[in-house]
Amino acid sequence: MEKKDDKAVLEGEEAAEETRLLLHSACIVTMGPDAAVYRDGALLITGSNITAIGKTESMLAQYGSSSQVHDLSGRWILPGLINTHVHTSQQLGRGIADDVDLLTWLHGRIWPYESHMTEEDSYLSTLLCGIELIHSGVTCFAEAGGQHVPGMAHAVQRLGIRACLARSTMDSGEGLPQLWAAETTDSCLQIQEDLFEQYHGSAGGRIRIWYGLRQILNASDSLLLRTKAAADKHKTGIHMHVAEIPYENEWVVKTRNVDHGTVTHLNNIGVLGKNLLAAHSVWVNPREVQMMADQQVKVSHCPAAAMRMLGFAPIQEMQSAGVCVSLGTDGAPSNNRMSLVDEMYLASLINKGKAAYTRGTTDPTALPAENILKMATINGAQSVLWEDEIGSLEVGKKADLLILNPDLWTTLPVHDPIANIVYCMRTENIESVICDGQWIMQNCKILTVNEGQILKDAREAAANIITRANIQLPLRMNVIP
Amino acid sequence: MEKKDDKAVLEGEEAAEETRLLLHSACIVTMGPDAAVYRDGALLITGSNITAIGKTESMLAQYGSSSQVHDLSGRWILPGLINTHVHTSQQLGRGIADDVDLLTWLHGRIWPYESHMTEEDSYLSTLLCGIELIHSGVTCFAEAGGQHVPGMAHAVQRLGIRACLARSTMDSGEGLPQLWAAETTDSCLQIQEDLFEQYHGSAGGRIRIWYGLRQILNASDSLLLRTKAAADKHKTGIHMHVAEIPYENEWVVKTRNVDHGTVTHLNNIGVLGKNLLAAHSVWVNPREVQMMADQQVKVSHCPAAAMRMLGFAPIQEMQSAGVCVSLGTDGAPSNNRMSLVDEMYLASLINKGKAAYTRGTTDPTALPAENILKMATINGAQSVLWEDEIGSLEVGKKADLLILNPDLWTTLPVHDPIANIVYCMRTENIESVICDGQWIMQNCKILTVNEGQILKDAREAAANIITRANIQLPLRMNVIP
Repeated sequence: MEKKDDKAVLEGEEAAEETRLLLHSACIVTMGPDAAVYRDGALLITGSNITAIGKTESMLAQYGSSSQVHDLSGRWILPGLINTHVHTSQQLGRGIADDVDLLTWLHGRIWPYESHMTEEDSYLSTLLCGIELIHSGVTCFAEAGGQHVPGMAHAVQRLGIRACLARSTMDSGEGLPQLWAAETTDSCLQIQEDLFEQYHGSAGGRIRIWYGLRQILNASDSLLLRTKAAADKHKTGIHMHVAEIPYENEWVVKTRNVDHGTVTHLNNIGVLGKNLLAAHSVWVNPREVQMMADQQVKVSHCPAAAMRMLGFAPIQEMQSAGVCVSLGTDGAPSNNRMSLVDEMYLASLINKGKAAYTRGTTDPTALPAENILKMATINGAQSVLWEDEIGSLEVGKKADLLILNPDLWTTLPVHDPIANIVYCMRTENIESVICDGQWIMQNCKILTVNEGQILKDAREAAANIITRANIQLPLRMNVIP
Repeated sequence: MEKKDDKAVLEGEEAAEETRLLLHSACIVTMGPDAAVYRDGALLITGSNITAIGKTESMLAQYGSSSQVHDLSGRWILPGLINTHVHTSQQLGRGIADDVDLLTWLHGRIWPYESHMTEEDSYLSTLLCGIELIHSGVTCFAEAGGQHVPGMAHAVQRLGIRACLARSTMDSGEGLPQLWAAETTDSCLQIQEDLFEQYHGSAGGRIRIWYGLRQILNASDSLLLRTKAAADKHKTGIHMHVAEIPYENEWVVKTRNVDHGTVTHLNNIGVLGKNLLAAHSVWVNPREVQMMADQQVKVSHCPAAAMRMLGFAPIQEMQSAGVCVSLGTDGAPSNNRMSLVDEMYLASLINKGKAAYTRGTTDPTALPAENILKMATINGAQSVLWEDEIGSLEVGKKADLLILNPDLWTTLPVHDPIANIVYCMRTENIESVICDGQWIMQNCKILTVNEGQILKDAREAAANIITRANIQLPLRMNVIP
């Protein structure tokens, strides 16, 4: 719905002379192919693009007089983080499903909640989630699939960040809420085709539309195959939950006549491919890891949700086989912190720790900091098929970046800067965020939306959904009213 | 060294009429035996003690005119968190040992670092660590053992929080730095006796001196037994790293003629007891868990360090057997976030996740939020043998508390308040901290020390130690100077 307006704005901007912004006196961690880190660097942004990077002294001499100049006084610049698996619609449901088993989680809490959301709820939920994403240094996310893509798109347009939006798509499955049960395969495809037509490339190119597949338990082979064909035709991606729990694999073995699970079946029917973003992928065997590598499937690793709900994916094995692994937060009822900063820390801990089960001691050398920082940036960009424009700070790419203050009690002293970013940094350190060349947060204050008003509206909307969906939560303690 | 001054101040305060402070219009999570949570509560502090708790309306009517009144406008009050295992001396060494194996960690980084610290370094390190502890809502910590207890005590006195300080004590062991190798058992005991005499009960009673045992690999049986006798005599505690890695148990089996490990040996010689705080205790078998329960040993569970360095302790099994388990951060080179807020979140994830290895799926119901909140508060108080005065908000206890703002992007919406504290809250939410009846942080600003100056001094001191100890760290990326 914002498409036309945005394009007009963009054309207007392009027609005018583009602003030049010079950020200098910063440590710039580029995450480019040469792994360059400028100790005292500067970065020139022209319009929405990075047009020069170099040492402060020479950059100031060359561009200082013809640009808006910002002295960052030793702060650090990183590429904006990329969250490759997040349910923005679930943000209003944070805390509705804590400490319950998986069946209660899904049938008693998440489905009732999601099926009672309106488009306005989804819009507010995405705004609320976006606020947390921006404070956590995220400039681009991949939506795992919600019901109301127009609401999400409207929110993303306002927030000023990038997103690959997908609709939660299901044409089959047991126990679905009544509202969702009737959708045909044709209808699933047509709705997404329409969404693609209307929103792909909107918000000045910041929004892309992907195809969604909730999970194999809710997808006929026809839906899987037609989704793959449609995504290929539109040169876009498919976002799907893959191999989340052992039961999923057992069910696939029983119903699809394969010897292991979802990945094997998707490989057999030709749905694995470089435009498939497979979330979680916990229960995959070595042969399936190789299939994912061969077909260039991307994996979104969500450490918090993995520990809480799903189990430990073979991340090191995937990376060794050549699979591109990135990081996601999953949705707020599965995590409940929607912070890629925390996911970096957790990715380290979970992957160092799991060796304790296989060899009796942890492996503190597993997934070193530089690896995890790649997962959160350039691997994220590859996972969302956008690495030509984002994921690293290079001349010609979009200016999507975060500015962090390393001189806080959270991070000092700094003996090993890259490790500090991954193991010490907290959201407190993230001061400012630029996306598509625009400041969207400065000094921890979001500039694109009214944070206070959104928090207020989101609270009310969240309480209303719980009432409509008749979700009862335990008191846990002896509450005196 | 501060003892006399502090006692004088305390007596002066007691002689004068005591200040009465009434905090009202807050959600008060008491963590008392009745698990009372006042939705709209008030708390009266007289001097250093809590003297009344109740509903806002009646408390305001009774005490409103005779007290300093603070309207908390819906904020939440919790007992101050208790960090039961932290190496304050290691704060300056944060980041010196990331992504390296355990032997490099200890012999190549930690020992060179610690053995090159001066008392002034330790003082600064404890100040820096204390700043992080306070921002994380901690009002009491148990020091795991450093070299310079007077430096630590001086820092704690200034910070305004509580601590059980211990000296890192070793009378044997291979590969120790030269500076430490020569200490006799007699000397180990005498130094601690002197420290006890000088500092126990100092800083107005906020400092207690414990006995320290680094680990069994560095302790003769004579040291173990004499430490136990001395701690019993002084009615104080013993802080010891216990059953950290499988090698430790193997070594004990070989050298002490027992069939399993450290806990079995300590049980055999009578060192297990209610005043032993056993840090980590990862590699214990079911019989040893029962020994710990029978002897009322306290366990400090450090989830981040466990995942990164040690492995997964049987926390649920310990709790089922009746062992009191609390939470610790461990030291900054093992974690690297010194935040009990994060440890609560991690304790949930690690203990829900580990079932994936034993039964194929995680157990999302393990360690529910109310359990974890106990670990961080009242169990912490029991672990540091101080539950008569701290760990819950009850009339007659010390006024050690934190005030958090739940209305932030980190935590909204709040459907399940207790779960939100454990699973969503970040240090951003912690606004104010009171310890011993004194404000030590207000609106995220620490009042007791000059944070900026300490950060500056600590940076310099940290860099100097690394130079003196000749510790070389990798660059990780392609750094352009």
